[in-house]
Amino acid sequence: MPKYVYDFSEGNRDLKDLLGGKGANLAEMTNLGLPVPPGFTITTEACKVYLDGGREPAELAGEVTTHLATLEGAIGRRLGDPEHPLLVSVRSGAKFSMPGMMDTVLNIGLNDVSVDGLAKQSGNERFAWDSYRRLVQMFGKTVLGVDGELFEHAIDRLKEQRGVKSDLELDAGDLRALTGTFQSIVKEQTGRDFPTDPREQMDLAIRAVFDSWNGDRARLYRRQERIPADLGTAVNVQAMVFGNLGMDSGTGVAFTRDPATGATGVYGDYLENAQGEDVVAGIRNTRPLQELEQIDKPAYDELLGHMRTLEHHYRDLCDIEFTIERHKLWMLQTRVGKRTAGAAFIIASTLVDEGLIDLDEALTRVTGAQLAQLMFPKFGETDAPRIAKGMNASPGAAVGVAVFDSDRAEERAKSEPVILVRRETTPDDLNGMIAAQGILTSRGGKTSHAAVVARGMGKTCVCGAEELDVDLAGRKFTAPGGVVVNEGDVVSIDGTSGAVYVGEVEVVPSPVVEYFEGTLAPDADPLVAAVHRLLTHADSKRRMKVRANADTPEDAERGRRFGAQGIGLCRTEHMFLGDRRQLVEDLILAGDDEAARDAALQALLPMQRADFAGIFEAMDGLPVTVRLLDPPLHEFLPSLEDLSVEIAVLEATGKPVPEERRALLDAVRRLHEQNPMLGLRGVRLGLVIPGLFQLQVRAIAEAAKMRKAAGGDPRVEIMVPLVGAVQELEVIREESEQVLTEVGYDEALIGTMIEVPRAALTAAQIAESADFFSFGTNDLTQMGWGFSRDDVEAAFFSRYLDLGIFGVSPFETLDREGIGRLVRIACEEGRAAKPGIKLGICGEHGGDPDSIHFCDEVGLDYVSCSPFRVPVARLEAGRASIETKGSDTR
Amino acid sequence: MPKYVYDFSEGNRDLKDLLGGKGANLAEMTNLGLPVPPGFTITTEACKVYLDGGREPAELAGEVTTHLATLEGAIGRRLGDPEHPLLVSVRSGAKFSMPGMMDTVLNIGLNDVSVDGLAKQSGNERFAWDSYRRLVQMFGKTVLGVDGELFEHAIDRLKEQRGVKSDLELDAGDLRALTGTFQSIVKEQTGRDFPTDPREQMDLAIRAVFDSWNGDRARLYRRQERIPADLGTAVNVQAMVFGNLGMDSGTGVAFTRDPATGATGVYGDYLENAQGEDVVAGIRNTRPLQELEQIDKPAYDELLGHMRTLEHHYRDLCDIEFTIERHKLWMLQTRVGKRTAGAAFIIASTLVDEGLIDLDEALTRVTGAQLAQLMFPKFGETDAPRIAKGMNASPGAAVGVAVFDSDRAEERAKSEPVILVRRETTPDDLNGMIAAQGILTSRGGKTSHAAVVARGMGKTCVCGAEELDVDLAGRKFTAPGGVVVNEGDVVSIDGTSGAVYVGEVEVVPSPVVEYFEGTLAPDADPLVAAVHRLLTHADSKRRMKVRANADTPEDAERGRRFGAQGIGLCRTEHMFLGDRRQLVEDLILAGDDEAARDAALQALLPMQRADFAGIFEAMDGLPVTVRLLDPPLHEFLPSLEDLSVEIAVLEATGKPVPEERRALLDAVRRLHEQNPMLGLRGVRLGLVIPGLFQLQVRAIAEAAKMRKAAGGDPRVEIMVPLVGAVQELEVIREESEQVLTEVGYDEALIGTMIEVPRAALTAAQIAESADFFSFGTNDLTQMGWGFSRDDVEAAFFSRYLDLGIFGVSPFETLDREGIGRLVRIACEEGRAAKPGIKLGICGEHGGDPDSIHFCDEVGLDYVSCSPFRVPVARLEAGRASIETKGSDTR
Repeated sequence: MPKYVYDFSEGNRDLKDLLGGKGANLAEMTNLGLPVPPGFTITTEACKVYLDGGREPAELAGEVTTHLATLEGAIGRRLGDPEHPLLVSVRSGAKFSMPGMMDTVLNIGLNDVSVDGLAKQSGNERFAWDSYRRLVQMFGKTVLGVDGELFEHAIDRLKEQRGVKSDLELDAGDLRALTGTFQSIVKEQTGRDFPTDPREQMDLAIRAVFDSWNGDRARLYRRQERIPADLGTAVNVQAMVFGNLGMDSGTGVAFTRDPATGATGVYGDYLENAQGEDVVAGIRNTRPLQELEQIDKPAYDELLGHMRTLEHHYRDLCDIEFTIERHKLWMLQTRVGKRTAGAAFIIASTLVDEGLIDLDEALTRVTGAQLAQLMFPKFGETDAPRIAKGMNASPGAAVGVAVFDSDRAEERAKSEPVILVRRETTPDDLNGMIAAQGILTSRGGKTSHAAVVARGMGKTCVCGAEELDVDLAGRKFTAPGGVVVNEGDVVSIDGTSGAVYVGEVEVVPSPVVEYFEGTLAPDADPLVAAVHRLLTHADSKRRMKVRANADTPEDAERGRRFGAQGIGLCRTEHMFLGDRRQLVEDLILAGDDEAARDAALQALLPMQRADFAGIFEAMDGLPVTVRLLDPPLHEFLPSLEDLSVEIAVLEATGKPVPEERRALLDAVRRLHEQNPMLGLRGVRLGLVIPGLFQLQVRAIAEAAKMRKAAGGDPRVEIMVPLVGAVQELEVIREESEQVLTEVGYDEALIGTMIEVPRAALTAAQIAESADFFSFGTNDLTQMGWGFSRDDVEAAFFSRYLDLGIFGVSPFETLDREGIGRLVRIACEEGRAAKPGIKLGICGEHGGDPDSIHFCDEVGLDYVSCSPFRVPVARLEAGRASIETKGSDTR
Repeated sequence: MPKYVYDFSEGNRDLKDLLGGKGANLAEMTNLGLPVPPGFTITTEACKVYLDGGREPAELAGEVTTHLATLEGAIGRRLGDPEHPLLVSVRSGAKFSMPGMMDTVLNIGLNDVSVDGLAKQSGNERFAWDSYRRLVQMFGKTVLGVDGELFEHAIDRLKEQRGVKSDLELDAGDLRALTGTFQSIVKEQTGRDFPTDPREQMDLAIRAVFDSWNGDRARLYRRQERIPADLGTAVNVQAMVFGNLGMDSGTGVAFTRDPATGATGVYGDYLENAQGEDVVAGIRNTRPLQELEQIDKPAYDELLGHMRTLEHHYRDLCDIEFTIERHKLWMLQTRVGKRTAGAAFIIASTLVDEGLIDLDEALTRVTGAQLAQLMFPKFGETDAPRIAKGMNASPGAAVGVAVFDSDRAEERAKSEPVILVRRETTPDDLNGMIAAQGILTSRGGKTSHAAVVARGMGKTCVCGAEELDVDLAGRKFTAPGGVVVNEGDVVSIDGTSGAVYVGEVEVVPSPVVEYFEGTLAPDADPLVAAVHRLLTHADSKRRMKVRANADTPEDAERGRRFGAQGIGLCRTEHMFLGDRRQLVEDLILAGDDEAARDAALQALLPMQRADFAGIFEAMDGLPVTVRLLDPPLHEFLPSLEDLSVEIAVLEATGKPVPEERRALLDAVRRLHEQNPMLGLRGVRLGLVIPGLFQLQVRAIAEAAKMRKAAGGDPRVEIMVPLVGAVQELEVIREESEQVLTEVGYDEALIGTMIEVPRAALTAAQIAESADFFSFGTNDLTQMGWGFSRDDVEAAFFSRYLDLGIFGVSPFETLDREGIGRLVRIACEEGRAAKPGIKLGICGEHGGDPDSIHFCDEVGLDYVSCSPFRVPVARLEAGRASIETKGSDTR
């Protein structure tokens, strides 16, 4: 027969599934001998039985009676006793903390009789009636579902009648009257009397906690957080203690170390003659915890002892709630405490020094997300006016003059820092984005072009600042309140918060980045030392290698400084922009004219070769994965709309239309696609446009051969994008091998992106022709979900997050159930077909902590991400290795 | 130890894997006691060993020697014997017929000595030298790889020298000289003498057959036909017999029934004093087979006997090649013969009557593709000029006046038949397409809008007729040669061949369709009777139901007449076009203005209700699956390009721009998507636009309720499109159930399309909220492969077919390995999660024969296709049941 009720002394912290997080920690403290008010926990199993069948398990009432009797014995009072009433709290407590659930009902056990007993017992009539009215109010609202506003209005009316402003000015008589009013409200709203039987109060509260598991907010929260719907919640019943019985009582919060800086020492707040909710309400100022020493030295010393006990026991920063009831210290709750990113690193490292944990465990105490936060410059304090708030698309702090055009931004950036301001960006803005300190747009979300490219560059970006009216032609934007910023005015943007300021705000650089860049020594300050120590340990532990996505020698060098062990994705499309646009246009316009096409390709060859030579030099001795051209060709041409308008206007106004513009329009119209993402791109270009991929392969091979001749050690991997069928790869592989042979460089690996769902589903076949797979999880997510990131974020992602359809955008964190399943299939079946095949990821997920753990689980050989994310990936790959230690990861 | 060589008497027709198709049938005839020239088959296993290791298996030479000796004993001549030389043929013969492979080398065994023996033995010196020069030519070309043109040129030069026109005019001396010339060519081209050792000739020819398995054309053919690359080919070595030894010899082809009409009786051709290649060359006119009775009655009677034997043995129409050598009949080859679609039905039915096969087997002898061919009207003989050839996008024959605009086409079709001529069609052309007899476009391929919609309607379409220069503004098109067709001129288009004619061509309606429509009795003619009989049998055998895709009551009724058991897909987007476009525009332009939005929805409600009422009436008693709105909203608005040009031109010419056009442009620009297919559509619309799906559900429920009140039996299934996550469906389901409750009709099933890859991958979760799945394999193919049908067909499908990347477009036949795997996963896991879930398919694949068999394999409950394909699907579903009979299909 299952056991549905556990005394606190019967549980421990490993029973979170059964007792919930709160119950498990209360049990742990009880077992440590700490002074916890006695109580018991009703298990999640009991909740599940109730939710399945609509009634409590038959045995529950009896078990509760038994445990209640034990509780009454321990505390020496009885529930409902008219003289010495026991009061209890009833609290929900699931395995995972769930803000959507019912929280707490306090003071259960009071009724019209026992309130007098409490008054006598406490010697404080006002306290007793205040406790009672709080019970009626909380119970009415949370258990009986009465609109809470009705109680608040009643209090307000009473205060008006009494001519007072604060609840504290109401006396015992007022509160007695208020309790009566509250009871009438309950009767009126629910058609029944407020229950005066204390056991009935308790049973109804327990049932209400059970029911709250399926409340609207809880279900929405679970949907968002992907918490299974069938876990159920536990219920904690605990004797009440009171910090508001006088100046010999009080309540407080304590931290075993400083959660803001990680510094060693006692931190916290204390408030005399108060209950927990008063601290939260913030009506009175709390006192620093240290002052408790003067107020009540024995209690203070006892608390410090318990804090030491807990920190040694949990081997981590603990966050504690306590109450002193007439000099008697009670420990109400503890949990491992939250902390800032910097504190996390410092505390983890310090705990190692103190011998409490080893380096492996220290590594699990910090996260990549925390490290990423530490890598961005920040704004200092400022008086500059904040004029708007957009999306915090790419963190950091940037200051510069506003410029509204990418070419001018590039020009002006030569002499002063620039913020590029656009409605939205396109690939044509790349030069401006590279030149600018930061990017500000008035449209688009976190997956807009601006956001994605900025994050890839590690560049500050605020996007979708919709309050700003950007007038590109007028070279200005207007903020709410009529503030006008003209080109050349200084603005400051905070990519971490999304704030936009007029004027210059001081920027504090990140010491962690200075350390990665080599301009700050590892022992320069405690934070850098802790980061260095843990990252070095992560490197020694991780199974996966970490590479950088880099398209230029500069990016490659930065990636290498940041610890990259190669390039996982070198995109070549950026190499076709700028000065070379004309050649690409010639290539496209050549159509079937072989001579014209070859001329364009020949002109591109030396440029491409130089591109690759620089990158191979920067990454000498490390692998470089070069992706052949991916985007549709019309991305290199003007837009159909613009060109149509241009020519129509010339015609309408009787002006001559240059023949080449007309030819260009024809080409643009011919190449126009309804859905370019699903059009002629990637391997399809290579199969349809004679000589294009061969040009790229030749440039790669020639660059590698030259590098080798110069004594270098190029390690080349040629990657074919968008393959969906092995036959596509076979054809390109054959052609490429022929070119490699012609050039006389045959050491390159040839592999493919796995970014089309069908490629994952037929990976066993594709593996036969591939030396490596690199998962392009951006496209895999787009095609697997059937939505394009460019189109859908603005249109419906926010609504989807609201509805709980996503907990997090699948473009940020890999969707394990859907897209992850494709990745897993491809890994397992690709490896079964070709055991030595190299597996990696080069989508943006390669820099996302949760996704990196997934990559480790499925056995990838490496992750690749933007240079700025490389340290994050190193850290998370190390953590992943430690977490899966002991289990067979392959 | 494997056995590498089989005498013909050792094999049988079940050994096609080992002996190839040709070898197996030769063995079968030998075992039947038919006079087959003796020979042996070298197995595919021997070929595989050779291909793997680059050399023949060690045992092969010895086995060949043994079998050659047997052959020589049987025929009484020896290979290379100077007096009585044995000549043999060496032919390839794989399991599947492969036109890409080496075919045949004849006359092996001839050399400068044995040619005299052959001359004496045959008494015909010219014959002997002609045979020899043919050997050197064939051997040189196929075995030694000499360019065949060189031999042809030598013949031409000789004929010039002799002043003759025909090969036949060359005498024995000429041919002897020519043989010498041919030998010199071989020596010159290969650096070696033509091999005169007969055994060496044979061994080299065998090896050449092995090698031909990996020839370029063979590999391409296999890639296209998805024939495994490791099967290998068998080699047949057979004694030569000669039909060209005089007027007492000859060669012919015979069919056991008429392959054109299916009529019973002997058919064939005979040519005296000739070899098989002479028949093929067509230099002399063949004689009807029946005349052989006069020429050589004993041989004729013997042949007829063998034909009866073969037909009874194979229980099917046989196609036979035979040779008579000096009155002696030799059977050279047999196989089950090809036949026309009509003959297939008639023969299958007749064989049942004759007791040779049962109805189950008869059903396997006909295909859905054949039935589909019989359902289209055809053109009769014509003198009208054919002016172009486009793609045969949707079969049939249509005649009408050319009209270049859909609105005019609709108008003009009221008084006369119309052919709608466009460069390409868009959804706006729907009215014109509905009104027209046929559609002709100058752009787009078989999956263009015109082709897809026309096939869906069963309407004749020729698309991509690129020779035609369509001038929409001038209301005319120009064909090659300057032929101009103006609006109103009559044209005829043949959707089966792609031909376009000027003028009227007579159209012969399909009797099979007349039978389906009920205007022709089942016994009206033999063809209709056979179709009726086999289709009725298919209905009695099939496990899967067949439904129609129908959006109107008219389509629903036709589907029902054609045997549909419900509607599997009723699209609702067509219901928002035409007169209602303005309301939809109002709805879109309403944006966040609730009142305006509700007004538009309220105005649409009665119209939608009437739409559904008509369909429910037509399908009374049968299930109707209504899909909620799927396409992106901007499909209902003008194009961005057109509207931008319109307004820019007004501005440039100083004319006023109407405010509503400007507002419309803003809306179009706001709703513009980079990739509409991956944008705001389907369930996303339902989640983002308040009230839209509720409007549709309300209209459905009200129509069903009214129908029920009127005594009808509506069976409603509401289908949510584009679901990728169960959470999406949960929200819509909840809202829909609320509407159903409000209306008071709660019998509707609620299910979802499975058309997004992620939906298939998470089908177990989605099944929890779905009463049914309907596979939308069009979108599943697009997203799974990552290409949009609108964009890619023209751009690269033809190239892909050329390269053998596809054997067939995955939009025509379901790609089993990739997309089929998703379907299989969803079926298995959906059913595991909810055993009673209903599974169907409503993509175009539901009408494709091969795909229907796949649907049966994975256990779908029904397929749904266009009304015209319903009989095809009924037939194929029946065949699928019979083929899987005995195996557990679920």
